[in-house]
Amino acid sequence: MSKIRSGIVGAAGYVGGELIRLLQMHPETEIVVLSRVRAEEAQDLVEVHPQFREVESLCGRPVSPFDVSLLAGECEVVFIAAPHGQAMRIVPDLLEKGVKVIDMGADFRLKDAEVFEQWYKTRHTQPDLLSQAVYGLPEVNRDEIKQASLVANPGCYPTSAALALIPLVSEKLIDLRSLIVDSKSGVSGAGRSKMTLDYFFTEVVSDFKAYSVGTHRHTPEIEQTLSIVAGESLTLSFTPHLLPISRGILSTAYATLTEETGADRIRAAFEARYETEPFVRVLPEGHLPQIKYVVGSNFCDVGFAVDSRTNRVIVLSSLDNLIKGAAGQALQNMNLMFGLPETTGLLQTPFFP
Amino acid sequence: MSKIRSGIVGAAGYVGGELIRLLQMHPETEIVVLSRVRAEEAQDLVEVHPQFREVESLCGRPVSPFDVSLLAGECEVVFIAAPHGQAMRIVPDLLEKGVKVIDMGADFRLKDAEVFEQWYKTRHTQPDLLSQAVYGLPEVNRDEIKQASLVANPGCYPTSAALALIPLVSEKLIDLRSLIVDSKSGVSGAGRSKMTLDYFFTEVVSDFKAYSVGTHRHTPEIEQTLSIVAGESLTLSFTPHLLPISRGILSTAYATLTEETGADRIRAAFEARYETEPFVRVLPEGHLPQIKYVVGSNFCDVGFAVDSRTNRVIVLSSLDNLIKGAAGQALQNMNLMFGLPETTGLLQTPFFP
Amino acid sequence: MSKIRSGIVGAAGYVGGELIRLLQMHPETEIVVLSRVRAEEAQDLVEVHPQFREVESLCGRPVSPFDVSLLAGECEVVFIAAPHGQAMRIVPDLLEKGVKVIDMGADFRLKDAEVFEQWYKTRHTQPDLLSQAVYGLPEVNRDEIKQASLVANPGCYPTSAALALIPLVSEKLIDLRSLIVDSKSGVSGAGRSKMTLDYFFTEVVSDFKAYSVGTHRHTPEIEQTLSIVAGESLTLSFTPHLLPISRGILSTAYATLTEETGADRIRAAFEARYETEPFVRVLPEGHLPQIKYVVGSNFCDVGFAVDSRTNRVIVLSSLDNLIKGAAGQALQNMNLMFGLPETTGLLQTPFFP
Amino acid sequence: MSKIRSGIVGAAGYVGGELIRLLQMHPETEIVVLSRVRAEEAQDLVEVHPQFREVESLCGRPVSPFDVSLLAGECEVVFIAAPHGQAMRIVPDLLEKGVKVIDMGADFRLKDAEVFEQWYKTRHTQPDLLSQAVYGLPEVNRDEIKQASLVANPGCYPTSAALALIPLVSEKLIDLRSLIVDSKSGVSGAGRSKMTLDYFFTEVVSDFKAYSVGTHRHTPEIEQTLSIVAGESLTLSFTPHLLPISRGILSTAYATLTEETGADRIRAAFEARYETEPFVRVLPEGHLPQIKYVVGSNFCDVGFAVDSRTNRVIVLSSLDNLIKGAAGQALQNMNLMFGLPETTGLLQTPFFP
Repeated sequence: MSKIRSGIVGAAGYVGGELIRLLQMHPETEIVVLSRVRAEEAQDLVEVHPQFREVESLCGRPVSPFDVSLLAGECEVVFIAAPHGQAMRIVPDLLEKGVKVIDMGADFRLKDAEVFEQWYKTRHTQPDLLSQAVYGLPEVNRDEIKQASLVANPGCYPTSAALALIPLVSEKLIDLRSLIVDSKSGVSGAGRSKMTLDYFFTEVVSDFKAYSVGTHRHTPEIEQTLSIVAGESLTLSFTPHLLPISRGILSTAYATLTEETGADRIRAAFEARYETEPFVRVLPEGHLPQIKYVVGSNFCDVGFAVDSRTNRVIVLSSLDNLIKGAAGQALQNMNLMFGLPETTGLLQTPFFP
Repeated sequence: MSKIRSGIVGAAGYVGGELIRLLQMHPETEIVVLSRVRAEEAQDLVEVHPQFREVESLCGRPVSPFDVSLLAGECEVVFIAAPHGQAMRIVPDLLEKGVKVIDMGADFRLKDAEVFEQWYKTRHTQPDLLSQAVYGLPEVNRDEIKQASLVANPGCYPTSAALALIPLVSEKLIDLRSLIVDSKSGVSGAGRSKMTLDYFFTEVVSDFKAYSVGTHRHTPEIEQTLSIVAGESLTLSFTPHLLPISRGILSTAYATLTEETGADRIRAAFEARYETEPFVRVLPEGHLPQIKYVVGSNFCDVGFAVDSRTNRVIVLSSLDNLIKGAAGQALQNMNLMFGLPETTGLLQTPFFP
Repeated sequence: MSKIRSGIVGAAGYVGGELIRLLQMHPETEIVVLSRVRAEEAQDLVEVHPQFREVESLCGRPVSPFDVSLLAGECEVVFIAAPHGQAMRIVPDLLEKGVKVIDMGADFRLKDAEVFEQWYKTRHTQPDLLSQAVYGLPEVNRDEIKQASLVANPGCYPTSAALALIPLVSEKLIDLRSLIVDSKSGVSGAGRSKMTLDYFFTEVVSDFKAYSVGTHRHTPEIEQTLSIVAGESLTLSFTPHLLPISRGILSTAYATLTEETGADRIRAAFEARYETEPFVRVLPEGHLPQIKYVVGSNFCDVGFAVDSRTNRVIVLSSLDNLIKGAAGQALQNMNLMFGLPETTGLLQTPFFP
Repeated sequence: MSKIRSGIVGAAGYVGGELIRLLQMHPETEIVVLSRVRAEEAQDLVEVHPQFREVESLCGRPVSPFDVSLLAGECEVVFIAAPHGQAMRIVPDLLEKGVKVIDMGADFRLKDAEVFEQWYKTRHTQPDLLSQAVYGLPEVNRDEIKQASLVANPGCYPTSAALALIPLVSEKLIDLRSLIVDSKSGVSGAGRSKMTLDYFFTEVVSDFKAYSVGTHRHTPEIEQTLSIVAGESLTLSFTPHLLPISRGILSTAYATLTEETGADRIRAAFEARYETEPFVRVLPEGHLPQIKYVVGSNFCDVGFAVDSRTNRVIVLSSLDNLIKGAAGQALQNMNLMFGLPETTGLLQTPFFP
């Protein structure tokens, strides 16, 4: 069987680089086009990502200015790692040419164009595609993803939050009005192109802060996923924070237990829900997720503690924002879309220390 | 006026070192005894804290093995920076000799010996002193501290949590059953003597984790302070996390608003409560606390956002765990106990970058 | 006596902020003008340096666009913390009005305008002032600084390198052709205004690199100082590296010993040279400088090892690039220029941890 | 062909963990024994390395107390990642049973037992094996390694230093008496078992220091390799430093050029020497090695600058101390010893960011 011909839009960023790294190790794909949205002329990949110097299948490859006809002509699948608003401009052309698309941005994640416009302050020019797009969280939508031409790859925080709460929400073990997600992310989540003092080493290194409190754009995405799982509409509080590390997200989720729920019931729910999931590790009692044990892998670790004094459950989840939170999950979706075993090319162990 | 003769028990730790640094800059004190609990023989201070080499008033000073009669004979005030269980063994002797004591450990923070024993798994041998001890949070107990002989200096997390929530709890602007405090601390909070792999550089540097979820010993201390402020007993969820930085705590507190409360009402409550407080900075709208803007100072920054979608208020507070969370607050208490202006020796600006 | 009226050009940077912090603690100065070179309109100091919020003598202070007549009219001394090329444009006016100037940039450090032009690729418009300017390394030029109107505050690397090597060079204990200085600096040395990806957190945090190898502009400055001390012209190799920390420089200097030199002779030279220096700490045998023991202070620590196998001496020096390497040394110079005790306002102990 | 049955002594450390990670991805090996020197009873691998939870070929595997007969009975190759002095106790038994050994410690690196004893302060109990052992630097000893039963895997610093200098030394482009290697390593190089305050997060995070100046045990190893390459005995200065990062070494090497040498000649030497080396990347002019571009890979990057002012060449090299500096190089040696293509299982791209 010939390899899947893949293209990347946004190859110069951190997610783009990680996608290249993972695709290069994937046994069933080849990268045929590397492009970046803002480029004016082609650059050598090694100028943009010096770590790839002398890597066999990559060296000498150009990163070209964005060209939809080139992508449509050469690729079977295109990964878009670009700021929101970009994908909606090119996806229709790609789909029309029969190219499958995995959009790692926000354009097709929210089912309701109005909600998109309200949170992203951007007009949605392709609202008709929203119903066609499949939200690419395999743990929820595996079957739909297999049939999809357009997958909206979830955000990093939403993956972390959803995987922490799905078993509880799905089985109604918790009061749906009580959900709070307090998340902490490494700086690579901010991307490589935001030239503000905020992400300077000296500004970040000994600091820690919350940001976008009550207003972060991943909030409606988390709510949408959990509402679908719950079968009813819910809202929650989501507070992101910036960690002085490169990679990784840890989310701490709080929920009030419904009357009869004990730790055993919760454990049973997590284990049943994730038993067959290849990339969700439910930690045994007494163990809680840590960022260092997932970075470098496509794993999401989930663990919890029940606080009987306050009748709450505290669920922790950890993942690598560039892998399970972006490029790894995109490959997981690609595997599903192309009928490959879901774990193909994704079984790297965590990279520690 | 002659200077206050002060002694330190636990001079070799991070809190001890910070106390020495601050006392050495304090215009109205002199350090007369430095001692450590576990020492078998005297060491030169510079062996323990090389940063003090050639610092005029410190060089050549010994750090002696602990000797209560020496402390009682030489000091007007003794600061105890030792693990819980140590202070209760020496405080009675010190008080009897008329020495004022500021205990930076946990022995005298909780008013109820049973609660202490339950959370600390240690028998309390001086329960009678608990009623005499004053909890040293000046923003709550300023007048009592002025009269006290024994001050229980608050924990770092409890200071951070209490200052975030006092105005809301005191005015009942929030549902007292809804309190959640998600705190993140730098590693110096773990002290300098715990020889476990957990605090090794390689284990911590790119990591982030929660610990002691639902079981951290600072939980009843936070509850005690807020219950007193509320005038009724409350419980809350407290989750500490370990940040890969040296210093600083950021707490993110969540509470459900009672019906009529808006952002203006909350702002008014914070401003009224802290208007005259020299070390609590209520940040203006649109600004939230960050660790880097308080480290090195005795400030606690407080800011908040109202999330009207979920009817919650999210309050952030930041402080330096070794200063406002330990040594600085201890000096603030000393100033009060000795009739000095409260800010004496404590007006260092934050140390950034 | 009234306080020295001081002004700052470049108040928004890291050096500017540190200068404000130190001046605010200095008992004999007041800040009368804060300005920045690139500003178009005045900003509140707290917008630029949020750490100074509610700091008594600073809050509400504007940082104004640069205005030489304002500075000349209000100030007795002006500190210039601006990129090279800026100071030479304003210093003549300031001097003419009788204002003393401490330039923390490079414009007046090199005595030879041609050397300046060659290394900085910038025409020197005030070559006549070069002979008037005093190089502000008190350990070498104390007496001249006392008489100076214009002091060229040394670079951070040159201070570190010079203090490591002066005793050896001055006593000709080493082969002057053998000097190598391998220096490592924290990121704050790069300033706050260079908006390049190079200083992004994610790019720096787990990295380490050399830069400007053989071409760094501090090279001729180090050579100039040591040549003067040696009484003959010398060249050396200087290699700067970027450390993933905020503050601090450690320099490792190598030199071949002249025939008869042993460790005792070297120690005697260091101790004799620095015995009365208030800010140079010669470490005892078996101890070597570390960055953490000087950060936050105006100390430069110096230590050495003799490698008899190779007949070399390896000298280490450490300092805080923003204090002894910039703002602290500037205040030390100010103290000398205004007849104050040299250590006034500069006796902060290191800030550790 | 059946897979190579491999065993690890020292599986619980950082090098051991990295070896497990790499072996688990290697297509031609299987791990049959995991053991640790100090264990008293078997532990589950996941207790020691939680990152391997649910990794297919690893979960449920015990890490056993050390048992030479088990290793000899089950393994074709044994990797020893233990402190010096351990390997010499077990290697004779393993070799006698026909097991190939790759010792990642120091016991068999130095050819002269006296030199070993002088630097390591340990008696060498197997001096006869020293002539049989092959120093496992493939770039120098590839052919001998292919025939070896016992390979002494090079130290991390020595690999970095040797690869930086071999082309210059081998072609005598430099004065052999002028060599200085100033190296900087991440903390994982110190291993996971040294329970001293020196490697605590709070002690390391904002610090940088040199250590073992003139006395580091890797010095004679570097000298031995370069002396062999030079064909004559040489000594050099080697100064290691501790970087506040987990992984990676950058070495800065200085040498005085012999008369006629220019940059072109040096470049030609590097390119000729490393042209066919799969894991040494000679960087083009204007580029210098950085740690972030090699971490996660088996690459060693080498680059240089010629300083014509001082007639010196400054060579930089970077590598991942746990991969090319330890576990990766060990696999490279195993590949050679078992007749596999040298790059088998070692083509991971660097892991950045």
